[in-house]
Amino acid sequence: MLKIKIEKTAHPKPKPTGPLGFGSVFTDHMFLMDYTADKGWHDPRVVPYAPIVLDPAALVFHYAQECFEGMKAYRTAAGRVQLFRPDKNGERLRSTHERLCIPPIPVDDFVQAVKALVAVDKDWVPAEEGTSLYIRPFTIATEAQLGVKASSAYQFCIIASPSGSYYPTGIDPVRIYVEDEYVRAAPGGTGAVKCGGNYAASLLSGEKAHRLGYGQVLWLDGVERRYVEEVGSMNCFFKIGGVIRTAPTAGTVLPGITRMSCIELLEGWGYPVSVAPLPIEDVMRADEDGTLEEVFGTGTAAVISPVGELKYRDRAAVINGGRIGPVTQRLYDTLTGIQYGRLPAPQGWITEVE
Amino acid sequence: MLKIKIEKTAHPKPKPTGPLGFGSVFTDHMFLMDYTADKGWHDPRVVPYAPIVLDPAALVFHYAQECFEGMKAYRTAAGRVQLFRPDKNGERLRSTHERLCIPPIPVDDFVQAVKALVAVDKDWVPAEEGTSLYIRPFTIATEAQLGVKASSAYQFCIIASPSGSYYPTGIDPVRIYVEDEYVRAAPGGTGAVKCGGNYAASLLSGEKAHRLGYGQVLWLDGVERRYVEEVGSMNCFFKIGGVIRTAPTAGTVLPGITRMSCIELLEGWGYPVSVAPLPIEDVMRADEDGTLEEVFGTGTAAVISPVGELKYRDRAAVINGGRIGPVTQRLYDTLTGIQYGRLPAPQGWITEVE
Repeated sequence: MLKIKIEKTAHPKPKPTGPLGFGSVFTDHMFLMDYTADKGWHDPRVVPYAPIVLDPAALVFHYAQECFEGMKAYRTAAGRVQLFRPDKNGERLRSTHERLCIPPIPVDDFVQAVKALVAVDKDWVPAEEGTSLYIRPFTIATEAQLGVKASSAYQFCIIASPSGSYYPTGIDPVRIYVEDEYVRAAPGGTGAVKCGGNYAASLLSGEKAHRLGYGQVLWLDGVERRYVEEVGSMNCFFKIGGVIRTAPTAGTVLPGITRMSCIELLEGWGYPVSVAPLPIEDVMRADEDGTLEEVFGTGTAAVISPVGELKYRDRAAVINGGRIGPVTQRLYDTLTGIQYGRLPAPQGWITEVE
Repeated sequence: MLKIKIEKTAHPKPKPTGPLGFGSVFTDHMFLMDYTADKGWHDPRVVPYAPIVLDPAALVFHYAQECFEGMKAYRTAAGRVQLFRPDKNGERLRSTHERLCIPPIPVDDFVQAVKALVAVDKDWVPAEEGTSLYIRPFTIATEAQLGVKASSAYQFCIIASPSGSYYPTGIDPVRIYVEDEYVRAAPGGTGAVKCGGNYAASLLSGEKAHRLGYGQVLWLDGVERRYVEEVGSMNCFFKIGGVIRTAPTAGTVLPGITRMSCIELLEGWGYPVSVAPLPIEDVMRADEDGTLEEVFGTGTAAVISPVGELKYRDRAAVINGGRIGPVTQRLYDTLTGIQYGRLPAPQGWITEVE
């Protein structure tokens, strides 16, 4: 149990008015906790949102020893504020820390820290349909020295940003470019954890897709460039001939919390779910023979993101006439229903912030 | 041609006395230059060494859009200060920027910036045998917003650190662990550029090697885990039956400037050099049949790092009786001779700092 010091700002910022965007307006406070070898993780505190001041030789600037999580706080119609499976974010952060040689933060401490910040900035959780408070926990290496080694000092931070509906004008299926030049991850690398380097590596491919007129990239595996892995920074599902298929996370695919929740819901509803390597040719062949029924991405930002078109080499597959499919819609309605408190939640999925 | 503003410190720090380490003591000044979409790269300046102040949402902390170079300034016996092939660092930074969607810095501007900082901090270039001023140019994404996209703002910085001899007690061959679990790079990824994420991904493997009693890791390719790629953060050469072999840099191996210089020197000396994929089994077989003559790493920090032992699975190859070999020694003597002005340099290899 952390003893969190709370220092409230003397200069609260005005809340944003009008439509909210994503990730550029921040609340009045942030959570900080430091690590040093002699003290371990120490000095947990909620303080006014302020710049981070680091020596130019801080390891985070050179060797990207840094990682993050993404999660949201939702305001229910009754005015309660709730988190969606925050323990799962804490578990994933712990496994990311391990891969990056960063000392672990206990899951309970992580959840407590998130709740502490959201409680202080509760008024920043927006109430309009589809809006939420996006929460960004992240860890950075702060030791100032240039040898390539794990840092002896870290800072764990949480910032939060009131965010608009991902679909202000209704769910709009995205057009996806299947990337067969650049690679996001390979076995033995860092694809299964949420470290900064994975995202830096993805930018060029994202720009290429935009230039070609596509909204996102579908990544193939790094060895054979054959098996589907992720869409942009989301997990990806394919409904083919009644079976819902998604890539295993072993080693190269991020174990998404929305992904995990979708699999649990789908299995509960009686859909056959296959978590196994899926070659892109099988997807394109299913399009040819008319059995490619639905494709969607899953992630914290959009929750569920229907895919309307898949472009692979010289072939474009239009999925369900470019419209959202029934399973995709049901998952979206159910997950957002649970998150906003309109539907009952499975045991342990919802944590209320008092 | 940059118009570099110079602001000298009013409080010069004491120079370090006693033996110098690596990368933890910094000079009085640093070079900074900013990028914004409307102004491009602007405001180049040498200023007193000071912390970097960034919004917690700065993209460098989240998506590791960051990269660096490593180079040295050497003091000759006559007291001159000189750089080794700085244009090659500038070219490599440009290609790293391109891979990470960072706007390019012209190579001439890069070299001018390095020279400007070293000129101001010239007294920090140490004079003792084997010492140098290590120079660390790096670029970080500074825009404060959490969408996964290339930043619209950057800072390019150069800091410098007086550094001790890599081999204070004479060249000591390193023992190397051949890594066949974790992977540094895969084709289509970022292995051929100097971005932070590559180094974060390597830390766990380095810790494993240390735990097993080895100084560094030899990386195998990310697809077959069969072809030798790099040693730790150095390039790697193998002399087998009279032929000097090293991995091609295409896509997954960093194009080292020491590597390039070694290849040029070796070819000039008439050695057969083969730049082609080299399976680790061929290396181990050469050890068995007695034709594995020398192994060494090349990089800016150590210049040339002889390998005394290679451990691959259950076999340990001891190279040249664990002692530095004649070609390794000749390369070390020649390169350091050129760098410290004791030997004439090939055309364009040396840039003097006035």
